[in-house]
Amino acid sequence: MKQVLILAFLASAALAQSNPAAQAARQWRQQHERAIIDEFIALLAIPDVTRDRDNIERNADAIARMLERRGVAARLVTVPGSNPVVFGEIRTPGASRTIVFYAHYDGQPLDPKEWATPPFEPVLRDKPFQDGGKPIPLPAAGQPFDPEWRLYARGSGDDKAPIAAMLTALDAIRAAGIKTRSNIKFAFEGEEEGGSPNLEKILDANRELFAGDLWLMCDGPVYQTGQQQIVFGARGDTGLDITLYGPRYELHSGHYGNWALNPAMMLAQLLASMKNAQGRVTIDHFYDGITPLTPLEKRAIAQAPEIDPGLMREFWLGSTEGAPARLNELVTLPALNVRGMASSRIGNQASNVIPATATASLDIRLVPGMDARQTTSRVVDHIRKQGFFVVDKEPDADLRRSHPKVAFVVVRGGDNAVRTPMDLPIAQETIRVVESARGPVVKLPNMGGSLPLTSIVRPLGTHVIVVPIANHDDNQHSFNENLRLQNLWDGIELMAALLTM
Amino acid sequence: MKQVLILAFLASAALAQSNPAAQAARQWRQQHERAIIDEFIALLAIPDVTRDRDNIERNADAIARMLERRGVAARLVTVPGSNPVVFGEIRTPGASRTIVFYAHYDGQPLDPKEWATPPFEPVLRDKPFQDGGKPIPLPAAGQPFDPEWRLYARGSGDDKAPIAAMLTALDAIRAAGIKTRSNIKFAFEGEEEGGSPNLEKILDANRELFAGDLWLMCDGPVYQTGQQQIVFGARGDTGLDITLYGPRYELHSGHYGNWALNPAMMLAQLLASMKNAQGRVTIDHFYDGITPLTPLEKRAIAQAPEIDPGLMREFWLGSTEGAPARLNELVTLPALNVRGMASSRIGNQASNVIPATATASLDIRLVPGMDARQTTSRVVDHIRKQGFFVVDKEPDADLRRSHPKVAFVVVRGGDNAVRTPMDLPIAQETIRVVESARGPVVKLPNMGGSLPLTSIVRPLGTHVIVVPIANHDDNQHSFNENLRLQNLWDGIELMAALLTM
Repeated sequence: MKQVLILAFLASAALAQSNPAAQAARQWRQQHERAIIDEFIALLAIPDVTRDRDNIERNADAIARMLERRGVAARLVTVPGSNPVVFGEIRTPGASRTIVFYAHYDGQPLDPKEWATPPFEPVLRDKPFQDGGKPIPLPAAGQPFDPEWRLYARGSGDDKAPIAAMLTALDAIRAAGIKTRSNIKFAFEGEEEGGSPNLEKILDANRELFAGDLWLMCDGPVYQTGQQQIVFGARGDTGLDITLYGPRYELHSGHYGNWALNPAMMLAQLLASMKNAQGRVTIDHFYDGITPLTPLEKRAIAQAPEIDPGLMREFWLGSTEGAPARLNELVTLPALNVRGMASSRIGNQASNVIPATATASLDIRLVPGMDARQTTSRVVDHIRKQGFFVVDKEPDADLRRSHPKVAFVVVRGGDNAVRTPMDLPIAQETIRVVESARGPVVKLPNMGGSLPLTSIVRPLGTHVIVVPIANHDDNQHSFNENLRLQNLWDGIELMAALLTM
Repeated sequence: MKQVLILAFLASAALAQSNPAAQAARQWRQQHERAIIDEFIALLAIPDVTRDRDNIERNADAIARMLERRGVAARLVTVPGSNPVVFGEIRTPGASRTIVFYAHYDGQPLDPKEWATPPFEPVLRDKPFQDGGKPIPLPAAGQPFDPEWRLYARGSGDDKAPIAAMLTALDAIRAAGIKTRSNIKFAFEGEEEGGSPNLEKILDANRELFAGDLWLMCDGPVYQTGQQQIVFGARGDTGLDITLYGPRYELHSGHYGNWALNPAMMLAQLLASMKNAQGRVTIDHFYDGITPLTPLEKRAIAQAPEIDPGLMREFWLGSTEGAPARLNELVTLPALNVRGMASSRIGNQASNVIPATATASLDIRLVPGMDARQTTSRVVDHIRKQGFFVVDKEPDADLRRSHPKVAFVVVRGGDNAVRTPMDLPIAQETIRVVESARGPVVKLPNMGGSLPLTSIVRPLGTHVIVVPIANHDDNQHSFNENLRLQNLWDGIELMAALLTM
């Protein structure tokens, strides 16, 4: 074990050597591991489920106090009905630009019964729980932590780790006498896991306060290989629920089979008309106007290490949609996904009936050049072209009797994609700074998932770059969420470098 | 009300006048309404859910005693593990043929909470419950019952009414001194609602006992217009459950959407490949070998009163599958029906995931010339042709990794269709006898639903004709099952005519 630690240290040291702030952060961390973890555990012990307003406010207060303990002026910013954004600011004399560090302190809903240990009683384990990891006590101050240990708690990976990393990095650079060169702002959101319903309103109402030349989104995991990654955007997200109708109530499939419309079969036919066997969406104009990837973006994708075979093995997949294109390339395209489907019952609950209704829930991931509303309206147009009379509330008897086929469609609100050009000077500078701290990193034009980037870009007209630190296998959004300690250590060094860019 | 009763009486009398046994049955019934209903209610009060073995045996004993009270030798016939078939026999000196009267005394499972009154405490109502019908006491003996009253109990329509009708008819013809001309047998099954799992075994083990020139299946409702119908067969029934696989567990639809296989979309595409927009099944060879309708059968269908517009209104349908063909014609063709479909979750339970599995449950209705096993194997062949590796148990990780697409298919046992030629002498005679009692009747080559006809035809090599008596709106298989009294009265007359053919 000792040898492994030394090798890990050497490998890691080699990468970080060129950035003085990162070097200072490593030294500080090595001297203060127990104190860093103690402060982090205290934050993780405050329940953080988005809709748990009382505890959300306790989190916001705790983070404001963490900022203030470091002399950073902090305030809670809200609009009516919102959870607070914790705002903090470090003014740097003579700085000509401002960098805003974003993370969110709220966490996904959970069912404590699914967790090995209570989600808000942070526990250190000697390896991942699913590999037999056992709870271990915290080492005494001054004793080293094994960087492969994992800290289990809701929010440990998503997304309190960056908050701990940023504030520790601040301690480290100050202790080393390294100055910030830009103005620094912190914006810690409290309802990201609830879909950021108020973020845009809050920023729009406080444009000056939150203005910056660059927002660094510190959220999500590092690359699946464990390498640091910089992600220049995220797909947008929208969706719709489609319900089709057969008979008023379930009918005997013998007496009426072949005659009464079967909504499950109609739904299958409708969905099948939307996508071909190669995974290409066949809705008219669906791909219209998409911003093509630049040569720089294409090159970045080509240079990213191959992860597809490993993921296929992990997910028990014998093939992938859109092959031979790879995951990193495919997520730069829009996706139309059936996230759920139901009609009558299956298995032992099934009976010989013609179902009365069939429902599918679709989510659509958008890329730059697509508009959420326009996209869902193209899907609705497509449904109409398949012969359906489309309504936006439950159809009554008369309406159903007077149209051959009726579809009840509920469109969910949506958010467009954001992709920051990789050749912007500030983007290139971010890459250089991150690589000076962490060595060569994976660069991707956008992640497949969605982040509330338009809520930032629209009111503030700024640029956003995503710089995640959590381990890829942190069980984000699921039970037994955890953070690998080395990811926190690396994150502290990364944040030190970024705080001083 | 009095006038309505008289008109109903006159109309009904005009139809029944030419059959002396039916006339005798009417007189007897008019004199014994209270006693007939008392005996029927006593039978309905014994719970009859198929798997409730103790009560099933109480039913069988009660029916055997009802037969024996009438001097009909009765016995309970079983095979190991089966519910009993109640057998009764009337030998007619000099008779050259045997007619077997079939009904079943078991009923569908139920949830008492759904019922307006307890399902095994029979209640008389002055009109249908859904039209505001109120419970009313039984009239005293000698006082007439309104024929529009309804008797509510599980089994009232499906299928104890024919048992009451047959035995009352027997009383009536004996009281009138009318002799049977054929040997008569009764076969009352106790597990029809459980899929008749043992009927064929019981008949096969007792071929002599159950032998007959004709089996009259007294089950199901009269025509949707309220007219008497004779049905010469039933569709067969089989089915399969298909499960398709995406990733091992649900994946984030942003991070992996467009790349991980979506089993819901694959299922939609697979189902859509099985049937076109006109309702025609597009599985190779699906319609091969189907016995065409004879001119007589086609004529019978053409002569049946049109019911489609009324049913469309009742079921809130704006169009039908297979239009312009009508229901009666469409049920002479096979049907492939999606009876249930599920993948992940919908509505408020939905989340942005790529589902791990998607399942559809199909039932297939067969017509003469099709074989159940061959048909399901054609469906499986079709699934293979769509690129799936088909397995008959849950695939493991290795199997899923080593095939691009995997389908887990469970085939349910099936039963072929039976259609008795309408031009057989005994079929023509049955039509004449029924029409002599009930006036012109609707004649259909087969019903859309399935009955355990092969379980009778295969071991006994006999013919089967279906002669139902229950009202079309009897809530068969659902809660608040009921029988309209006029249907019982008509049934008694019909059975009297058939017992003396």
